Amino acid sequence: MPVYVSRKEHFNAAHKLYNPTWSKEKNEEVFGPCANANWHGHNFELIVTVKGEPDPETGFVIDLKKLSTLIRKEIIDKLDHKNINLDVDFMKDKMASCEILIVEIWKILAPSIATISKAKLHSVKLYETPRNAVEYFGE
Amino acid sequence: MPVYVSRKEHFNAAHKLYNPTWSKEKNEEVFGPCANANWHGHNFELIVTVKGEPDPETGFVIDLKKLSTLIRKEIIDKLDHKNINLDVDFMKDKMASCEILIVEIWKILAPSIATISKAKLHSVKLYETPRNAVEYFGE
Amino acid sequence: MPVYVSRKEHFNAAHKLYNPTWSKEKNEEVFGPCANANWHGHNFELIVTVKGEPDPETGFVIDLKKLSTLIRKEIIDKLDHKNINLDVDFMKDKMASCEILIVEIWKILAPSIATISKAKLHSVKLYETPRNAVEYFGE
Amino acid sequence: MPVYVSRKEHFNAAHKLYNPTWSKEKNEEVFGPCANANWHGHNFELIVTVKGEPDPETGFVIDLKKLSTLIRKEIIDKLDHKNINLDVDFMKDKMASCEILIVEIWKILAPSIATISKAKLHSVKLYETPRNAVEYFGE
Amino acid sequence: MPVYVSRKEHFNAAHKLYNPTWSKEKNEEVFGPCANANWHGHNFELIVTVKGEPDPETGFVIDLKKLSTLIRKEIIDKLDHKNINLDVDFMKDKMASCEILIVEIWKILAPSIATISKAKLHSVKLYETPRNAVEYFGE
Amino acid sequence: MPVYVSRKEHFNAAHKLYNPTWSKEKNEEVFGPCANANWHGHNFELIVTVKGEPDPETGFVIDLKKLSTLIRKEIIDKLDHKNINLDVDFMKDKMASCEILIVEIWKILAPSIATISKAKLHSVKLYETPRNAVEYFGE
Repeated sequence: MPVYVSRKEHFNAAHKLYNPTWSKEKNEEVFGPCANANWHGHNFELIVTVKGEPDPETGFVIDLKKLSTLIRKEIIDKLDHKNINLDVDFMKDKMASCEILIVEIWKILAPSIATISKAKLHSVKLYETPRNAVEYFGE
Repeated sequence: MPVYVSRKEHFNAAHKLYNPTWSKEKNEEVFGPCANANWHGHNFELIVTVKGEPDPETGFVIDLKKLSTLIRKEIIDKLDHKNINLDVDFMKDKMASCEILIVEIWKILAPSIATISKAKLHSVKLYETPRNAVEYFGE
Repeated sequence: MPVYVSRKEHFNAAHKLYNPTWSKEKNEEVFGPCANANWHGHNFELIVTVKGEPDPETGFVIDLKKLSTLIRKEIIDKLDHKNINLDVDFMKDKMASCEILIVEIWKILAPSIATISKAKLHSVKLYETPRNAVEYFGE
Repeated sequence: MPVYVSRKEHFNAAHKLYNPTWSKEKNEEVFGPCANANWHGHNFELIVTVKGEPDPETGFVIDLKKLSTLIRKEIIDKLDHKNINLDVDFMKDKMASCEILIVEIWKILAPSIATISKAKLHSVKLYETPRNAVEYFGE
Repeated sequence: MPVYVSRKEHFNAAHKLYNPTWSKEKNEEVFGPCANANWHGHNFELIVTVKGEPDPETGFVIDLKKLSTLIRKEIIDKLDHKNINLDVDFMKDKMASCEILIVEIWKILAPSIATISKAKLHSVKLYETPRNAVEYFGE
Repeated sequence: MPVYVSRKEHFNAAHKLYNPTWSKEKNEEVFGPCANANWHGHNFELIVTVKGEPDPETGFVIDLKKLSTLIRKEIIDKLDHKNINLDVDFMKDKMASCEILIVEIWKILAPSIATISKAKLHSVKLYETPRNAVEYFGE
């Protein structure tokens, strides 16, 4: 009887899409305005979904307050009002695309959630804009 | 060629998170402000998804008007402007968490939908707030 | 050159519409399911708008972090996860309608904002649901 | 390490639900106001999700600008400000329901996306209104 | 102490922008794809705002259930699943633009609301899409 | 019979709140994480409202396609995927707060709109996040 429980958090950050092994021209050709050397930014929305059995005593799969606190401590505090390319330890030397970012977020959250709950991380989804999103299931 | 069809309905209800076998102090420790004896409430959004083959004569997997009527009769009328702990027969003696509620909603809708359509219930998802949601697939 | 600055906060609360000088029957006739003795509830959204000149040194009409802290302390902490009829001092002996509530919120915020900023409270708007809202301008 | 990438596009179109082999009366009985001979319409939202490995050089599963351009050329330009029953070649002689439409959209996009990316089409989802949606996975 | 109370309703309709005194070419030049002879359509959102003093016995400026019923009877039932150019009596021989439509909606609602409440119609706002809106204050 | 017509556009940009005449410490004290030297960013939503009489031949107060084109050319192209502090000519040597930005946007749009329409600019509103907004009426 597994139930999936989701929590949405948000952060505001700057980034650029830029491959340092390429020329400025190739970066602009591939990434267009996303390669702007002076950065741009987004209001990101992050949805974390865990899967588990409701505890009969609490009715909870996971305590959402604890999950929210964990996401903020492990992820949001490191990304909010930050530059994803420059300020974020777990993105160092990586492309600052949403695809790479969401995989790194999974790598941090999956073991962290295991320390506070028997529920398992099921998916992490990131909206860069209301029209663009990425999702990762750890497979 | 199964297509998934979703219908969103909403209801406004009061509840509290409270385990009657625990002390008031333990309830407050575990559930925090959600344990407030005088209740709190939400605008809940319920998304019901069914799965089936489109009928060649109608183009429908299910008649969404009939599905909406069924959800309102079986679920919304019992929850809207109600107290989930006190007023809802199918939640009697159960924890009024979203996890427990969504499983009970599944148990009612799965056989009911079978009476109006060859399509099968695929999932039920409940938003308690825009940031907190639960989903159940009947597995 | 006045600029209007708005901050949205939210709270989840229970209430009922009930005039204690009327019979149960008259209450149900006038208020329908909103008169349910066992309460119902909503995710309320509160939008506070202030009006003022941007400070040339900060570019701010008001420090939104300070405004948010003030709204939370004066209003949200008193309403969130509460019963508007029973738990809220400034609603004691008043009808728990959005119209009455928004006027009381204005009475608290207008002088409070004056203590942290030269900007003036312009309006307070309250969404009870995405389809129902009230707004008050203090006139 | 597959990542799912979604892009949302929209179009405004007219349609009616009408089976030409039935009488006017039967159409009105089955489809209600959706059978109105003079049409009605919607703001449709289309969400296209592809699945693939992020390219190590770009960090992309797919170039979202190219995906957006492809969706607009293959789908949106044929549906936006159009009548789904009368103006759309790939809906000719088909019921103009969302279920039929989303399957036809899949049939066009799946091979088209294969021409611009190694990523595979995973799902297409269509919102007719904020409360009614269909989704198809090509199975 | 006037409070403003808003109610949002929605309808799905078809229309085209077409001036019958012009040539087909001029219509297409001026209105572009909105002039498509076969129509297009939208999910329209209508927000009706009234202004008045809260009644001390009910806490209401207006009974929102009665206001909703009135809007549905006078406006929504005439527009929902209809063709604005062909099916709507109060739009006969008028341009089917949102600007013209919202003025006609005002003309109907202002006197109708006066029959159910002492509150006065303050504004009517119409979203044709989430990005395009018109508003009218009866001035 | 003036009708108000609104158009929403969006842009994604980076900025920081930083007064160059202050010390780093004072900037951090006043602006907190918004002063991060490496920038942060947002998905901004800009709503432009004009006021005028509907033209009897078109039913339009203003041609929304022309208004959208003008806003994109004059405002969005200069802000989208840009750094507000570094890349935007009309923000040079100004605080990159939303209050200052919205006044500058007004100064550009008010005369520009006068060149394409008899309608007058009524207001410009900018959402930095769904919870924070500024609005300016040119007064």
